[in-house]
Amino acid sequence: MKIIQGGICAAKGFKANGVHCGIRKNQTKKDLALIYSDVIANAAAVYTTNIVKGAPLVLTKEHISDGKAQAIICNSGNANTCNANGIEIAQQMSELVGESLDINPNDVIIASTGVIGQTLDITPIKNGITPLSEGLMYDGSAVAAEAIMTTDTTPKEIAVEFTLGGKVCHMGAIAKGSGMIHPDMATMLVFITTDANISSEMLAKALKTDVVDTFNMTSVDGDTSTNDMVAILANGLAENEEITQEDEDFAEFMKALNTVTVYLCKQIASDGEGATKLLECKVTGGNDLLSAKKAAKSVICSSLLKAAMFAADANWGRVLCAIGYSGADVDLTKTDVSFRSAKGEVTVCKNGAGVAFSEEKAKEVLLENEVEILISIGDGDYSATAWGCDLTYDYVKINGSYRS
Amino acid sequence: MKIIQGGICAAKGFKANGVHCGIRKNQTKKDLALIYSDVIANAAAVYTTNIVKGAPLVLTKEHISDGKAQAIICNSGNANTCNANGIEIAQQMSELVGESLDINPNDVIIASTGVIGQTLDITPIKNGITPLSEGLMYDGSAVAAEAIMTTDTTPKEIAVEFTLGGKVCHMGAIAKGSGMIHPDMATMLVFITTDANISSEMLAKALKTDVVDTFNMTSVDGDTSTNDMVAILANGLAENEEITQEDEDFAEFMKALNTVTVYLCKQIASDGEGATKLLECKVTGGNDLLSAKKAAKSVICSSLLKAAMFAADANWGRVLCAIGYSGADVDLTKTDVSFRSAKGEVTVCKNGAGVAFSEEKAKEVLLENEVEILISIGDGDYSATAWGCDLTYDYVKINGSYRS
Repeated sequence: MKIIQGGICAAKGFKANGVHCGIRKNQTKKDLALIYSDVIANAAAVYTTNIVKGAPLVLTKEHISDGKAQAIICNSGNANTCNANGIEIAQQMSELVGESLDINPNDVIIASTGVIGQTLDITPIKNGITPLSEGLMYDGSAVAAEAIMTTDTTPKEIAVEFTLGGKVCHMGAIAKGSGMIHPDMATMLVFITTDANISSEMLAKALKTDVVDTFNMTSVDGDTSTNDMVAILANGLAENEEITQEDEDFAEFMKALNTVTVYLCKQIASDGEGATKLLECKVTGGNDLLSAKKAAKSVICSSLLKAAMFAADANWGRVLCAIGYSGADVDLTKTDVSFRSAKGEVTVCKNGAGVAFSEEKAKEVLLENEVEILISIGDGDYSATAWGCDLTYDYVKINGSYRS
Repeated sequence: MKIIQGGICAAKGFKANGVHCGIRKNQTKKDLALIYSDVIANAAAVYTTNIVKGAPLVLTKEHISDGKAQAIICNSGNANTCNANGIEIAQQMSELVGESLDINPNDVIIASTGVIGQTLDITPIKNGITPLSEGLMYDGSAVAAEAIMTTDTTPKEIAVEFTLGGKVCHMGAIAKGSGMIHPDMATMLVFITTDANISSEMLAKALKTDVVDTFNMTSVDGDTSTNDMVAILANGLAENEEITQEDEDFAEFMKALNTVTVYLCKQIASDGEGATKLLECKVTGGNDLLSAKKAAKSVICSSLLKAAMFAADANWGRVLCAIGYSGADVDLTKTDVSFRSAKGEVTVCKNGAGVAFSEEKAKEVLLENEVEILISIGDGDYSATAWGCDLTYDYVKINGSYRS
């Protein structure tokens, strides 16, 4: 398996495009994306567990209940959530896509991201749909990735190449992240395409299994969005023998999927609102998997630790505090903590108590823009990783002015 | 019942003092407090549920297992937590108090607050104990309140007068708050004294019952500290007939206690690290109490909403988002949201969807330094209140530089 170029269009038969249609006032900011498969694809998605669910998610769930889809439309600038006519607007969006691409509107996945609680005007989408669909390109990933951004500072895309039963397959994805990132059984908007041939059932299984250890272990601010969704389309054009069970090919497919999703988790976390650095918390020695996960996620969610990381301050007491209230089964007498980055590693706590360390060295390690927090919570065999970012002045700035 | 002056010394027979002994480098900052009852008092306390527990809490629990205490010592500047010799140091602190006041060291409540994971040097406490105990005053509440502050910007004290069986009783308290405030079955450091005559059992019951709706409904940053503790001493000098059951007197005592604790919750929240305003979230219409509480607490814990409140931005979609992931049983079709302050009230959401409102008026309401977020989550009979604060640049600043 290798990383390749092409993003969401790396897989055979997938086109994409992104345009500015006028949902956003800023005319230089694209606000409408379309992804299209030349043939009908198997589809699966996971959604936010927030009970306030965006209208687009409700409709998408209906549309892919048959395990099939052919296109994804996504606008930024308005979440189409908590509006009286949200479902109606989402329905209209899928009909516009259906007409312009000559496909069944029920084979359209709909997504919206932006401010909650403001009516989404269909007019700009109506006006934008023709240039959007006519401009679909086999190398359109970058513009689509751009069109789904909200407070993201960089577009997020990745693609991999892998082999199933001698056939070369591809998988690509785009994502948006930044704020309201604390996925629970789902994530922010992530769209994945693959030309691998895999049944709807196995595709759904692959996605559900993967997100538990990837997007659900990522947090920017502890807020689980109303519009989180990861959707995957598999159009089978790689012509491998269809994956219908948990065999070697499925394992290989899972590996490709995990490479794509972990990359995006890191991208989303490191581009968290206002973030200056990516935090990767690796917990080992857990007596059970849930404990390792709880400890890792608690650490990357601690506002206090996040602020300390912003200041490159090795305030490890906050790491222990976060482990302590995480609900994890922790053996404090065997708890160790280190910070690691490209500049080296500094151990700050052994067996639950502080050890002497060079503050100068720790500062040097923590000033890097990717920092690992390595924690052992005992003698157990379970480990987990979580991704987050620091808490900065800019997070406050961005979120004090997002709506207006 | 009425609010009176005197703080922790308002109740008969209680003295207090606070000095700078040298735990902190800044010589103008007091760092050691002592509270003393002329006679042995009934005592109760509740503690953090963080499994990383400060050594002082562990020892305090032992000391008041007999329901009795006579003094409270508390230092700021060092939490005496996650140190190899923490228990030993806490033990020495109680022995120093015992010697200097000629009381049993086992009747001393010990508390420490400050940075976690640095050895607490007993020397400054040894040097400070004589001036501290010799300087105990019947009007020493303010200096004691000052000595337990960490990043607090104001000392926190309150006292009330109430009547039990014809006898005038008093209850007073001091507290520290600011950061790592997300109490769970306990809270930050709060010390309460009363001259009411109440059995140890009923005192413990009163405290445990009260904190569930007060300190446990307060959050500054979602971090449950390792050193949270609320301790109450009742020395009986008001000479009312001892409270031994849930009768009218107990109800009156609970009312006094609740007045004291709610006042302190608001004080702690409004003086949260970097906070510019107090947020009071009142949820009504819950189908069950837990749902009302979950919804209220989720709203005041949302980083996104907190940042919006800092900017006086009526971004109510974030309120709905926070309710949605709270786990509360919510009827979205009957969910209303309003913001209220001294400048008036603005309804922003009715039946789960936005309503037209004056942005100008909303801004005016939200610019006040005490803002109520009023939420109905359905037709039910249950309600709950939670207290929090906004998320500001200064929170990041304070926590990027706390340890160093």
